[in-house]
This record gives sequence, C-alpha cells and structure tokens, in this order.
Amino acid sequence: MTTQISKLKEGKVRFQGMIETVRDKKNIQFVILKDFSGKIQVTVDKVAHPEVGEVFSHLISGATVTVEGELVKSEYVKMGGQEVLAEKVEVTSTADVSPIGPESNIDQRIDYRWLDLRQEKNLLLFKVQTTFTNALREYLIDNDFIEIHSPKLIGTASESGSEVFEVKYFNTKAYLAQSPQFYKQMAMAGGFGRIFECGPVFRAEKSHSRKHATEFTGFDLEFTGVEGVEDVMVMEENLLTYALKKVSEKYGEKIKEVFGVEVIVPKTPYPRIKLADLYKELEKRYGYTCPDEEKDDLTTEAEKLCDKFAKEVYGSEFLFVTDYGARKRAFYHLRKDGIPQGYDLIWKGVEITTGAQREHRYEILKKQAEEKGLAKDVEFYLQFFKYGCQPHGGFGLGIDRITMNLLELPSIKESMFIFRGPDRLTP
Amino acid sequence: MTTQISKLKEGKVRFQGMIETVRDKKNIQFVILKDFSGKIQVTVDKVAHPEVGEVFSHLISGATVTVEGELVKSEYVKMGGQEVLAEKVEVTSTADVSPIGPESNIDQRIDYRWLDLRQEKNLLLFKVQTTFTNALREYLIDNDFIEIHSPKLIGTASESGSEVFEVKYFNTKAYLAQSPQFYKQMAMAGGFGRIFECGPVFRAEKSHSRKHATEFTGFDLEFTGVEGVEDVMVMEENLLTYALKKVSEKYGEKIKEVFGVEVIVPKTPYPRIKLADLYKELEKRYGYTCPDEEKDDLTTEAEKLCDKFAKEVYGSEFLFVTDYGARKRAFYHLRKDGIPQGYDLIWKGVEITTGAQREHRYEILKKQAEEKGLAKDVEFYLQFFKYGCQPHGGFGLGIDRITMNLLELPSIKESMFIFRGPDRLTP
Repeated sequence: MTTQISKLKEGKVRFQGMIETVRDKKNIQFVILKDFSGKIQVTVDKVAHPEVGEVFSHLISGATVTVEGELVKSEYVKMGGQEVLAEKVEVTSTADVSPIGPESNIDQRIDYRWLDLRQEKNLLLFKVQTTFTNALREYLIDNDFIEIHSPKLIGTASESGSEVFEVKYFNTKAYLAQSPQFYKQMAMAGGFGRIFECGPVFRAEKSHSRKHATEFTGFDLEFTGVEGVEDVMVMEENLLTYALKKVSEKYGEKIKEVFGVEVIVPKTPYPRIKLADLYKELEKRYGYTCPDEEKDDLTTEAEKLCDKFAKEVYGSEFLFVTDYGARKRAFYHLRKDGIPQGYDLIWKGVEITTGAQREHRYEILKKQAEEKGLAKDVEFYLQFFKYGCQPHGGFGLGIDRITMNLLELPSIKESMFIFRGPDRLTP
Repeated sequence: MTTQISKLKEGKVRFQGMIETVRDKKNIQFVILKDFSGKIQVTVDKVAHPEVGEVFSHLISGATVTVEGELVKSEYVKMGGQEVLAEKVEVTSTADVSPIGPESNIDQRIDYRWLDLRQEKNLLLFKVQTTFTNALREYLIDNDFIEIHSPKLIGTASESGSEVFEVKYFNTKAYLAQSPQFYKQMAMAGGFGRIFECGPVFRAEKSHSRKHATEFTGFDLEFTGVEGVEDVMVMEENLLTYALKKVSEKYGEKIKEVFGVEVIVPKTPYPRIKLADLYKELEKRYGYTCPDEEKDDLTTEAEKLCDKFAKEVYGSEFLFVTDYGARKRAFYHLRKDGIPQGYDLIWKGVEITTGAQREHRYEILKKQAEEKGLAKDVEFYLQFFKYGCQPHGGFGLGIDRITMNLLELPSIKESMFIFRGPDRLTP
C-alpha cells in the first residue's frame, strides 16, 4: 500500500497520484500530483534524472503515476511549503484529453461524471455528505436506534400506483418501493422501538424540477414513545443540529472557501408555526395571498417565502409548519380533532422533511385509508396493526436534497453521485 | 416522549410498552411489559386499583399500554429486582391473537414477519447487525473513506444479462444493479480514492439455497494505493477484526446466551492459501479429490471443508483462498502471469467475500472483457478508464450472509429484515 499524499512525511517517499499539471522548463519540471487526500508538488531535475523528465513530458492531466523521491521543506513552494524531489517514476495509466471543461453544463458534465467528480468542489461535496450522513447515524445509534434494510422490491404498488416503477419479477410483477414508510412502521409493530434506514427510494415522476430525481437516497426514521407530533419535531431538530454541528466543525471553513456558503448550526428549538397562521403572516408582511382552495397545503410560493419569514422573524434558517389540512396529508398521519398531527420542515425556503405522529390503531387507520380510496392497495400494510402496536412517529429526509440545500447548489443533479431523471439512465 | 423501559428509575414513572403476559390472581395481577430496550414487571393491586385490574384482565399479548405508577426495588422479582406498582393504565392498542407460534416454520413466520420479529432473538439479531455494520463504517470513515450512493436503476444490463431484473422506465427499459462494482470503480477514476457503499443489490437468480436472496444488502468498498492483492486482503482482515471486536464487546455474552454461539475475534493476519495448495491439502488430509476440470474454482464441498481445515491447521475460522483460474473470475480482476489477483474469503466454511486488485488500464481491461465476450455490454464502464485511473482494489460483503454466519443460523431468511426470493415478494 502506498501512502496517501496528505500523510507523506519528510524523507524518502513512494506514493501514487494523478497528474493535475506539468510545467516543463528547460532543466526542470514542476508537476502537481493529487489524490483524494491532497496535492503535492513534484520537482524533477531533468539534468540529474533525464529519464524521469522524459516520462513526465509525455503525460497529460489525468494520467497516473507512482513516484519515488525525497520530500523536503521548501519555502519557495506555495503548496504546503514542501516538494518531492523525484528520483523515479512509473506510469500506472495514461489518459485521453477530457471532453468536458469549465464551460460544460451540468448535463454534459454528467455524461462524463467520473471526470466531473475530479473537481475539488465535488470531492469536497461528497466528503461533506459523508460527514453529514454519518453524524445522523452516530446520533441515532448513540440513542439506541436499530438500523434496518427494508425491501425495495415489493409485491403491491403502494400509496399511489401511478408513480411506481414496475419490475418484471420472474413470472409476475414487482414494484420498486417509493419509500420505506410501511416497513418502518412494520418494525414498530414488530417491537423494534427505534429504527432508521438509509437507502434508495424510487419515484416514477416525470418531473424536471431542480429538486426531483427518479431515484435518490432517503434517510428515514421511526420511533415509539411518541405522545404527540411535538416529540417528533424535537427528535428532528436535535438530530439535524447535531449533524450540522459536525459538518461545520469539520468542513465549515472549507465550505465557505469553495462554495461561498456559511454553515450555520441552528439553535434548538426551531420555530414552529401553524399553516393558517403562516398564511396570515405572509399576507400581512409580504402581501402574499394564498387562494382559499389551496390553504390546506403549502404552496410553492409560500414555501419560498418561508425563508425570508423565518430569517426576519425568528433569525432562523429553519421553520416547522404544522396543522396542514387532512386532504393533502397521507392517510397514516394520526389526526386530532380532524387535524393531521404532522409537519413539514422548511430550510432556506425548501421543504426537506415531512414528519408526523402515525395512526397506530387498526380500525381508525383502516377508516382513514378507506376515505382516501386506498383500503385495497394498502391491505397488507393494515395487517401490521391488527396485533397491537405502540404509538409512534417519524420522518424522512432526502440526503441529496439536503446536500443541495446545505451548499446552495442550483440543482439536485449537482449533489447526487450520479443523477437519475426521466431522461437520464447513464452513466 | 415517554421513557424507554431500560431507563426507568425508582419513583414515579410513566411509560409505554407491549404486553408479553398477564398473570391474573384473585387480588393481584402480574403483567410483563416490554419494549425494544427491555422488560419490566407491572404489579396491580386489584383491591386498591380495581379499574386498572379490569383493563389488564381484558388484554392479551401484543396489546400496548401506557402505564403510570411507582417503580420500587423488590427482592421477590426475578426480572431486574424491581417492579412497577401500577396506579393508572391507558390502552394504546388492542391485539388479535397471533397466528404464528413456536411451531411455525420460517416461511409461515415470514408471512407474519412483524410478529416474528418480536422474538427476543430477532430483536437481538438486528441490534447485532446494527453494531456490526456501523463498526464497518466507523473503521472506514476513520480511515478517510467517502460514502457513496450509486444508482440502482441502470441503463444497460451489466456483467451477465440473464440474472438482471428489468424495469419499465417511462418509454424505455432500465435494469436493477446487481452490484455497485462498476460505480465503485467510476469513483476511483473520479479521484475519490477511498469509497464505500452500503445498499441493496438485486439478483434475478432462481436459487432456493440457504445462502441466496433476490435482494440483499451489500457492503462494498474500493480504494487506491493498492500495489497488489495482498493490500486488499490486509484491509479486509483489519476491517472485519475491528467489527467483530465491537460485536463481541457489546453483545458477545448475550449472543452466547441466546444463540449458543461464541463470537471469536479473529487474529490478524488471517491464513492465506493458494487454491491449488488447498486442493492438495484437502486430498491429503480428508481424502477429498476435486475433479480436474473444476480445479480452477472452489467447489461447494471444498468450501465446506475449509472450515475444518482452517481450524485444524491455523486455529482460524477464516481462510483467504487465492490464485483462482481466470476462467471463473470476473474480467476486471487484474492478472499477473495470467493469474487473477483476487481471492475469496471463507468463514466457517462459507464464502463471504470476493476481493481483488482491479485492472485499471483501459487497453488491458478492454481485452479481458473481449475474451469473456462482454466488450459490448460493458462499453460504458470501459470509458471510465480512458482518462486515467489510479491502481485500486476492493471487495464486497453481504450483510445478511455475514449475520447468518456470525449467529450460525440455518438460512439467510432468518437474518434479513424481510426475505426476498423467487417466490417471495410479501409482506
């Protein structure tokens, strides 16, 4: 195993890297080599080591090498104040010229995503995403949550059949899970108490918005002991604050430098407002009037205005909106006096979560499914509640959408390892 | 939020739980309540609180309640030496009688998996799996690995088309990824250096063996800096030893008690043997003769014998087998003198990993794909290597198979949250 660049120490070194640039002078070459951990300048004395100079003079950006030499401190080198005086080089792979460049748009870049990922900002993005996601898991595991992996291949098209992908499954049909919701709740009926799952979810939506993808990474949790939707919101704000703190500590400065974005660690509790009160405020403050027939849901425009509103009134990037109308909320939200005990969490004017206390009582749940005309489709799910189930609640996040929002990117295409949309199945 | 049972303290308490048993005597009731964290005895003085007794007398196993009362130490109670003297009870859900019991076989139990999961051993199993999987991630993230989420919907049927599920994707077809292999390597070409992924993999195999499922959870990694397959094996043994140590520390005793299995933390390095030498040893020691035409691969019988062999000769549950024939190994394994630089890791007589140094040079990789007649199918993948790529290697584990092996279960059906097989798409 060769040493990663960031861990090289003074003295004899042997390491691998990818060429970023070669500056070829008469008697000397300056080569910038990089790997996932950092960059280093390799200096070639062409007089002393002509064979090394010869090799580098034929290599372009992207080619990879193993270098042997001596790492020395050098006040002339900007990059970390050190350089490697090369003694030997071995080419491990050559490279064609990259077909994409700074002028390429996101769709061209995704065609060659593996080259696009080489950009410093993309490497940073996925390091940040790793830290964020792992902090979520860390918090939950420290709080006794169990990780599950629910099936993505399911026998019946759940919730809303129209947005489900169909799979040829031997001599029958299967469907791809749109969310782990039903299985998270199955775990509750199974006495698992506190669970989370991180995995792909599939949506057969022909949407081309900046926030949508046909496949993305969901992070979902569900837990018992809940006595009201407030308990679910408290869990979410504590969890997110913990994760953003970890991101800020590790990458806050780097994010500011590369993306120009300040990572703000939110204070708990996040502000909460009822949907009806929010509409009153938006009208009073910004003259936004929501049509009466849409007042049971958050309109796209109101969602955007939440950013301004939450910052001005509460000094917060986050805002919990509660008390939506039953018409627009899932049948499995528990209702009190007809009001679904759920919420949306808005961050910088983008909805990042829907959460709720769930209805855990078989008869009531069945009735609510019937009201939405879903009783047949969700029959298998209703069975989970026939044999007893503790009160519970939960929520789900989209990791890609959160990353997009955190780094203030123009589209979710930028924050996914490889985007999938209605017209995009490659690479 | 109510307190979980394991965290209740002496004095006034309020908590939720599921009824395990109710023993109803003339003037007193003993109720065992449980949640995911533990069990507790609730004692009802029917004379002092007749209304509480009345409620419990109608509830069966599975029903859930919120209880208020006083937690007191009691030397008469076996379960933790404490009991809750109930003052109030509220029914949160009633329960029908469970249609499965100790006599039910695994397939009947999966029909009602949410009830089957209530068994103590199943709750423990998923706690163990959580600890194991998280230890893998912890080790890797501490070693600068980046987490990726590669697409499961792919545009072309990769590797071997026959075992791939087909998806109706708007007006075209997509396929479900059989492994993240190609995308892990894309990340290498993208300069990510060290990555891992944990997610579902899909195999359209009509196998009914105890080790196979059509969907399972894969844990895959890939990393640069590799100078030979030995580096890959070292990474794997360090990783597994770390994770098994964590499992042993947290659940070793409990696993012995519930599953009768000792968790052995393996010493590194694990023994290594070349396939040809293994066959010689198996013949010499156990009289097992492998047919000549199968000697480039590990036969099922030889795989099983590895358990005995590794324990007897090396005192190890683990055995790396190297130097398989090129015919049976994937085209993307790097070859030295015609020998694929890969291995299988056998644990307790079951293959749990295939690992390898990968071929990272475009021309050679293309030639090896052509030899296997795959050049067209994998054209998109070959492109990843045209623009340079550092030497790298990696391996993949099946989380469900590892769990099965760790706890010595009869079938993978027992170790999956919900099993998926050719005839099984529910619940």
